[in-house]
Amino acid sequence: MPVSAEQRSEIDQIRSETKPTRRVTVPALEEILYEPLPVLDHGFVRVIDYMGDDNAVVQAARVSYGKGTKKMSEDAGLIRYLMRHWHSTPFEMCEIKFHVKLPIFVARQWIRHRTANVNEYSARYSIMDKEFYLPQRDQMAVQSTQNRQGRGQTLNDQESARVMELLKNDSEQVYEHYQEMLNEDEKGNVIDAGREGFARELARMNLTLNYYTQWYWKVDLNNLMHFLRLRADDHAQYEIRVYAEVMLDVLQRWCPHTFGAFKEYRMGGANISTTGIGIVRRMLAGEKVQQSDSGLSKREWNELMDDLGLEKLKA
Amino acid sequence: MPVSAEQRSEIDQIRSETKPTRRVTVPALEEILYEPLPVLDHGFVRVIDYMGDDNAVVQAARVSYGKGTKKMSEDAGLIRYLMRHWHSTPFEMCEIKFHVKLPIFVARQWIRHRTANVNEYSARYSIMDKEFYLPQRDQMAVQSTQNRQGRGQTLNDQESARVMELLKNDSEQVYEHYQEMLNEDEKGNVIDAGREGFARELARMNLTLNYYTQWYWKVDLNNLMHFLRLRADDHAQYEIRVYAEVMLDVLQRWCPHTFGAFKEYRMGGANISTTGIGIVRRMLAGEKVQQSDSGLSKREWNELMDDLGLEKLKA
Amino acid sequence: MPVSAEQRSEIDQIRSETKPTRRVTVPALEEILYEPLPVLDHGFVRVIDYMGDDNAVVQAARVSYGKGTKKMSEDAGLIRYLMRHWHSTPFEMCEIKFHVKLPIFVARQWIRHRTANVNEYSARYSIMDKEFYLPQRDQMAVQSTQNRQGRGQTLNDQESARVMELLKNDSEQVYEHYQEMLNEDEKGNVIDAGREGFARELARMNLTLNYYTQWYWKVDLNNLMHFLRLRADDHAQYEIRVYAEVMLDVLQRWCPHTFGAFKEYRMGGANISTTGIGIVRRMLAGEKVQQSDSGLSKREWNELMDDLGLEKLKA
Amino acid sequence: MPVSAEQRSEIDQIRSETKPTRRVTVPALEEILYEPLPVLDHGFVRVIDYMGDDNAVVQAARVSYGKGTKKMSEDAGLIRYLMRHWHSTPFEMCEIKFHVKLPIFVARQWIRHRTANVNEYSARYSIMDKEFYLPQRDQMAVQSTQNRQGRGQTLNDQESARVMELLKNDSEQVYEHYQEMLNEDEKGNVIDAGREGFARELARMNLTLNYYTQWYWKVDLNNLMHFLRLRADDHAQYEIRVYAEVMLDVLQRWCPHTFGAFKEYRMGGANISTTGIGIVRRMLAGEKVQQSDSGLSKREWNELMDDLGLEKLKA
Repeated sequence: MPVSAEQRSEIDQIRSETKPTRRVTVPALEEILYEPLPVLDHGFVRVIDYMGDDNAVVQAARVSYGKGTKKMSEDAGLIRYLMRHWHSTPFEMCEIKFHVKLPIFVARQWIRHRTANVNEYSARYSIMDKEFYLPQRDQMAVQSTQNRQGRGQTLNDQESARVMELLKNDSEQVYEHYQEMLNEDEKGNVIDAGREGFARELARMNLTLNYYTQWYWKVDLNNLMHFLRLRADDHAQYEIRVYAEVMLDVLQRWCPHTFGAFKEYRMGGANISTTGIGIVRRMLAGEKVQQSDSGLSKREWNELMDDLGLEKLKA
Repeated sequence: MPVSAEQRSEIDQIRSETKPTRRVTVPALEEILYEPLPVLDHGFVRVIDYMGDDNAVVQAARVSYGKGTKKMSEDAGLIRYLMRHWHSTPFEMCEIKFHVKLPIFVARQWIRHRTANVNEYSARYSIMDKEFYLPQRDQMAVQSTQNRQGRGQTLNDQESARVMELLKNDSEQVYEHYQEMLNEDEKGNVIDAGREGFARELARMNLTLNYYTQWYWKVDLNNLMHFLRLRADDHAQYEIRVYAEVMLDVLQRWCPHTFGAFKEYRMGGANISTTGIGIVRRMLAGEKVQQSDSGLSKREWNELMDDLGLEKLKA
Repeated sequence: MPVSAEQRSEIDQIRSETKPTRRVTVPALEEILYEPLPVLDHGFVRVIDYMGDDNAVVQAARVSYGKGTKKMSEDAGLIRYLMRHWHSTPFEMCEIKFHVKLPIFVARQWIRHRTANVNEYSARYSIMDKEFYLPQRDQMAVQSTQNRQGRGQTLNDQESARVMELLKNDSEQVYEHYQEMLNEDEKGNVIDAGREGFARELARMNLTLNYYTQWYWKVDLNNLMHFLRLRADDHAQYEIRVYAEVMLDVLQRWCPHTFGAFKEYRMGGANISTTGIGIVRRMLAGEKVQQSDSGLSKREWNELMDDLGLEKLKA
Repeated sequence: MPVSAEQRSEIDQIRSETKPTRRVTVPALEEILYEPLPVLDHGFVRVIDYMGDDNAVVQAARVSYGKGTKKMSEDAGLIRYLMRHWHSTPFEMCEIKFHVKLPIFVARQWIRHRTANVNEYSARYSIMDKEFYLPQRDQMAVQSTQNRQGRGQTLNDQESARVMELLKNDSEQVYEHYQEMLNEDEKGNVIDAGREGFARELARMNLTLNYYTQWYWKVDLNNLMHFLRLRADDHAQYEIRVYAEVMLDVLQRWCPHTFGAFKEYRMGGANISTTGIGIVRRMLAGEKVQQSDSGLSKREWNELMDDLGLEKLKA
């Protein structure tokens, strides 16, 4: 369970209060505000705060005095236009703040997106909880042979069991030694008053990268979409993709028109190269084109055939 | 008057509605939400939206599940601690959005602060209003002789009147010609159906730099303070300083503890150099120190004496 | 002529010296180093410094100890792969610094690209030169009726002459008054010792937006390409596009493989939406598709037909 | 030893070549270019490339056509002026690129500085080397009681030996299991052809945070100084501070005038609060001030007394 009883009660308390505001509100997002949306075995995504909605995008694009909105259909059309033509600044006028609990190796990928604000739980200052990530059976996979940066089919039962045992035992052991070094338990109580405790900022180095950390992460709508486009993509590692997928649902609640345009112009569709579009034109003109006379490498050709729904022509 | 009757009515309408929210609210800031706070002769600052408050800084610093607040005094102490030790990330967890109307030459200074989001009124797309800045009598000043980048005492009456006449007439004339080129009035109506209209994106180049533009400007609390420290400072040009001063009042309403710590550790006080602190130590030890044996240039010495309230020792 | 005799001589002097370095060098770029590449009537782009080349992209992607390069073909392939899959960080490892002279209204568009470093000539501190932009005859265009943000066909001779006269006269007049207010000539010499001079930071507001300013602008290769993709595009205003085009040539000299991949995957080709790719698939399967049953607006349909080279099917 | 024989030879080769350039060069920095400067037990800092020098700061501040330099003393004075008055943009005109090898827990602190470019060695793609950090005896310290975020005196011999044993054994064991999971050795050779290998992107999670990673890190001079001010400070964790100290030496070679001004106005000296400066003024006026009537907390009072060299007055 990602949150303790005490944390659950803090969350319930904060959720129980409402106050009046003159600001833009989004009821569908208010509904899940502060709720931990579970991810992986111990992780979560919580929406802590937000600023703006679809109308705020429109209002900023028009530099309006009031709401700045017109007919719903015109506003949705404007959002689609802005997305299609990469007019990104109006989307920067909305902001969202998340509380995320995630394994350290996922946090290390995530933090590479620099245009966001972060406050991470400090293991110099505090003691890390004993919570570590173990993949589910169907995620226990071999190294991909196709893609040096990815995973292939799942491990056989025997290997899977062995790997799981190693992961689990090492995670348990490093934590046990972490506590022994600190001479403190998870609550910060001294274990053996006759011993010295090793500094927290040093002891933490004994933990493995599957330990969970947590942070507050705040980002504008434009940079959130940039993050989601890369991290909800098939090429992203599964363990970060599941976070991105939960955040896509959040986006849909928050700004449904922006979400629709994002799916239409960013997540779906295809980015076709100069050579690729030449091939499409030749094909549409009735010409038979093969990889060998396409000017594309085999890999690029196959990616293009996938985009065009012509899997049967793959080389 | 900075806003038209129509704009005033749009603002009144948007101000009249409140909705319930589970988010943090700041009643003192809600009070002035959407209101144009006048600056210069036609400009304003309007708060359009905000995220977070003093508690949100504390909550992020503690990576909390609930409100994350403790006793008021502890929270204020934490904010002071964060400010004193340049722990800037918790302050990035609050965000504010302004609508600002300002002369173009002020906008050109303002935009140099890059860590903010901006949507500016487009003169490629729309017609500029006939509104330009003219300094008040007491701001009609000569070039400073002390500081090559600043102004000195006010002009005499005759020069002041002459400069004002030039500024006013040229501003009037360039707008008249702007309209003539466009062949459109301020509402976008064609003036003479028998003539062609020059493209807006080109005609705008005939306007002078004192014309007003407007934008939506969104920034996090940390970067807002950075902006205010530089722009509410004596060295800043008067025409941008008056905007910063209005925004300082907004900051005080929004996050009073942060504002207090900001005044204590950033706006007031002194940044003393290595050599300077050596001098202070010698003085405190009872030694008489003069500029000539201080190791400081005359300019730096005088700045230090100002900081120390020892104006009588200035060289 | 964009540079004075004195400036020309400074440039020649700095170009005449070479020194040995262990760093990566790019002879094709060294060739034009410091040279003003003319743009518009008085503007220029000068390359002042650079860091890295195509190999530096490869070296960073591989986190190498030495040069990090393999066979030329493998390196070029890696650069294409990185570009295709939006792996942008290796391109951030190259940096270039420009000195640019440009009209203020162009500078105002340009500065919206925030991920760059800028030092602009200060009109608070210095006197602006008497240099302003006047469009050439073939750029004197009417407002577009198709695109509210653009220009259409050229003005007729009579209108063109009238607009040019207005632009020229107003530019001349505002400068004359600028000098009168300052009571200083272009060199900073006092004109009339019996008069006071208005502060520079104020007098500048009387200049029109077609006056030239200049700045040092430094950017990494990734953000340079982002700038070029938007500003060398047909939708960009002509007056900024001509700068982007000169910088595209610079890019080709500097990093020819990156330039090739940029043309292939960013500048050329097509970004097709989810609905659009569905239409392409139907067409490739032999189906006749029309705008009315496409799910696309007329505008989007026509953009797609342009991409596909099917102009005859435009609605 | 931080680099292998093969890496050493790659480095020697790249160091042996020089080429002519028209760009600014810094002989003192060229001298150490590409050399691994050792840090901790297996880490290093290598300067890979640089752009600009002290003169480039001056040149940008003056927006010059040629070198932009005047007399050495004037240039140094300008640099001091810029530093003193927080005119940061001219310092952004210089750039430096490092190759750094560092423990993962240090990398996690370092990456929080977002205004830099990074390419990290990928453990999704490649196998991590068997290199982990173990503190030296004199860094084996207890948790600080003064500062919840720091370390105190060193551990006694017995505890130190015990902690070292735990760190070493766990580091060895997790790597052994990492290899077993991968079924690959450090070179990527399959260990047991009859077994499947666990995906690299997953197996890496079994490594502890003291394992070394490496990256290319590129930053401008202004942001480098910001990093150094925070990380070469006493409050920074020792393991990152030693990197910052090596980079301070690099800065001194690269831009000696900037380094001097940085020491004078940023690293040394004191930042005194509004209340603090009031106390200094009272003291200079001959008044006896004590903590109890100072308006400062005990902690702030003591920090001020330290700044003023009045340790004997500490409360």
